[in-house]
Amino acid sequence: MPPTPLHLSSRSRRTTEQPISWLIQQAVENRDLISLAAGLVDEETLPAAEVVQACEAILRDGPRARAALQYGTTQGLASLRQQLLERLRAADGLTPADHKLAASDVVLTTGSQQLLYLLGETLIDPGDLVIVEAPTYFVFQGTLRSLGARILSVPVDHDGLDVEVLAELLDRLERTGEIHRLRFIYVCDYFQNPTGRTLSLPRRQRLVELVERHSRRQRILIVEDAAYRELRYDGPDLPSIKSFDPENQYVVLAQTFSKPCAPGLKTGFGVLPRDLMEPVLLLKGNHDFGSSNLLQHVLDDLLASGAYDRHVARLRRAYRRKRDALTAALAEHFPASSGIRWTRPDGGLYVWLTFPEGTETGPSSALMRAALRENVLYVPGEFCYDGSSGPVPRHEARLSFGVASEEQLREGVARLARAAAAARAERSELAAIEL
Amino acid sequence: MPPTPLHLSSRSRRTTEQPISWLIQQAVENRDLISLAAGLVDEETLPAAEVVQACEAILRDGPRARAALQYGTTQGLASLRQQLLERLRAADGLTPADHKLAASDVVLTTGSQQLLYLLGETLIDPGDLVIVEAPTYFVFQGTLRSLGARILSVPVDHDGLDVEVLAELLDRLERTGEIHRLRFIYVCDYFQNPTGRTLSLPRRQRLVELVERHSRRQRILIVEDAAYRELRYDGPDLPSIKSFDPENQYVVLAQTFSKPCAPGLKTGFGVLPRDLMEPVLLLKGNHDFGSSNLLQHVLDDLLASGAYDRHVARLRRAYRRKRDALTAALAEHFPASSGIRWTRPDGGLYVWLTFPEGTETGPSSALMRAALRENVLYVPGEFCYDGSSGPVPRHEARLSFGVASEEQLREGVARLARAAAAARAERSELAAIEL
Repeated sequence: MPPTPLHLSSRSRRTTEQPISWLIQQAVENRDLISLAAGLVDEETLPAAEVVQACEAILRDGPRARAALQYGTTQGLASLRQQLLERLRAADGLTPADHKLAASDVVLTTGSQQLLYLLGETLIDPGDLVIVEAPTYFVFQGTLRSLGARILSVPVDHDGLDVEVLAELLDRLERTGEIHRLRFIYVCDYFQNPTGRTLSLPRRQRLVELVERHSRRQRILIVEDAAYRELRYDGPDLPSIKSFDPENQYVVLAQTFSKPCAPGLKTGFGVLPRDLMEPVLLLKGNHDFGSSNLLQHVLDDLLASGAYDRHVARLRRAYRRKRDALTAALAEHFPASSGIRWTRPDGGLYVWLTFPEGTETGPSSALMRAALRENVLYVPGEFCYDGSSGPVPRHEARLSFGVASEEQLREGVARLARAAAAARAERSELAAIEL
Repeated sequence: MPPTPLHLSSRSRRTTEQPISWLIQQAVENRDLISLAAGLVDEETLPAAEVVQACEAILRDGPRARAALQYGTTQGLASLRQQLLERLRAADGLTPADHKLAASDVVLTTGSQQLLYLLGETLIDPGDLVIVEAPTYFVFQGTLRSLGARILSVPVDHDGLDVEVLAELLDRLERTGEIHRLRFIYVCDYFQNPTGRTLSLPRRQRLVELVERHSRRQRILIVEDAAYRELRYDGPDLPSIKSFDPENQYVVLAQTFSKPCAPGLKTGFGVLPRDLMEPVLLLKGNHDFGSSNLLQHVLDDLLASGAYDRHVARLRRAYRRKRDALTAALAEHFPASSGIRWTRPDGGLYVWLTFPEGTETGPSSALMRAALRENVLYVPGEFCYDGSSGPVPRHEARLSFGVASEEQLREGVARLARAAAAARAERSELAAIEL
């Protein structure tokens, strides 16, 4: 006899399968697949030797071993929080006098995804508004829907989020009276996932001005997802959006060690306005009363010893070569006459591909079917749009140079080109039949 | 100028400071304090050598290192889930034919607290009912309130949760029609936190029968928190409540590696009814898409190599001595004439102390003030009651023999005895004044 049904909470009923499951499923079913879809990191560069050294340094030192294997605090290891604060200051070229930040404004989390979840849970009631980029990081979009948020979006151009379109949207929300439902604006500002684009310096400052201006009755926050900041291959670093928030009121900075170090360490961190820290910590206390203490000690050691910085420098060299391999292969296989364009990111892991209008890239498109036959996978661009703010472009794709080797990247693009040709042939045939 | 206020979600506004914060605060402010309050584990027995060996075995083996440092899956490492399933079968004396369980019914979480949170989040809408033990694990009580649950409770006696009182409560909920709001019954069934009591064998079976009987329209679950199961010092092991659920429909089993191995590894796991797994994984995907993969590989290695079992055997010997030291000191300092009674647990980390009625133990009681002057700390028993199901006993206390050494346990009880004498004297003085 089947069991009587379970009653699920309204949040659970709002929580649907992420499109990433579909992608993983394809990868599992096709063992020879070259995945240009996965957001995984390059396995050859994972810091195994560095991590084992840090573990040995910690666990062979009695007092440190006891501290690392015992419970930690909900907020996380104080010495690591202090190091992260100092590194942020150094990266942004700030002195302690320039902004009101202390180690007590930093929280360690189970990857930056947990921080994003906690922020949403702390701030969003069903029906509240959140503004994201179009396109945006698709996993967080699913999280926002699960929390019941209504999603609005603002397009990304060559300089990142279009702040003037945002300004108009905020004005409109003021006019409709809905501005008081707006909780935050989510921006992936360095080598954005999925487009690879970076928010320009003037737009960073303008973004903070805009939320400040519209926070008359209650505060609108900016959630700055800087996951890829350290993975820069060309050009000078840009200061964080956070650096334009000297009073620590408007910007939450989210970062992770998954991309610049190792996903298996599952540790991220946030820098939060002071009055947001307490409610986030209360919720995190209920989630887990603190992320793994041992892993925080490992990262504290890697940062202090310099092993982390040496590793990031190595990573930059390795990923730069892979980005160049991917973009060179694209140039080889997709001549200008193909009408296919792509971004050339200064960092991060992603290239955004735009096919001619009419070339659909979705999961059941001719292109995707041909790509799966050729054993190559990409992320359909439509996964990265919510659809609540206008028609969803159907002719885009995200390619990642994270996990594939240089050789696989070249072979993957060759397969993708064959798939595109096959899809084109199929379309011509159909067109001929219809004529 | 102060910033405009933040708007917090209704869940955030329901989330209050846990009493544990008050306890931690006391410990931080009194450096010479002997804490009989902290639920921390014994630091002398933390498995530093074993963990570093496991890290070396994994991280010096290229393919294993790459697997462990990369992203894992949301559900967790398959080989570890398989080992945990087999160990559960062995502990419960079951064969695969006896119950419908597979490794796909096991999920790895960031400590068992995360599993408890996810269960609550998946099942509870504000106003839904949850039944807990009185007294119960106070941290989870705070979590349930944050989720908006209405808490009902059922007393614990020498044999654990009183299932006949539970039967009456369930009948009453049937009569009032509120049974359809009841989501689950939370039971800590081995050496309960906070009383140290264990649910008897007949009551385990009866508990499953009861939820089955009352699940006509929709399913009521049992959440079995078996955090302390492996820490048994006397007598034979009892089968899990889960073992009485052969169709895997009614019982969620929650366990953790924090107590029997190391809190710093922050890994727990659950065994879930099949139709609950999917919604829990969807939410966990939004929380973190998987707990630390490296730590799961470490635990997989510790279990497979036998290091884990050897460690648990050592722990049992060490904690048995500590339990004996604590109960011997209690017998020495609190003679029968004192009217003070306590439990002698067969395992776990806790002894439950009952003072004569009228001797208050709360945070602002004469006893607590005297104890803090003596530099000894306990958990006020009233923290472990919700108060929604009758008057809260004010004369109880939880003592832990987890973190203190045998010497500290003896000294701590001596201090507690002096504090009790001082509080008694203060009460007599007050009584004399009032006369």
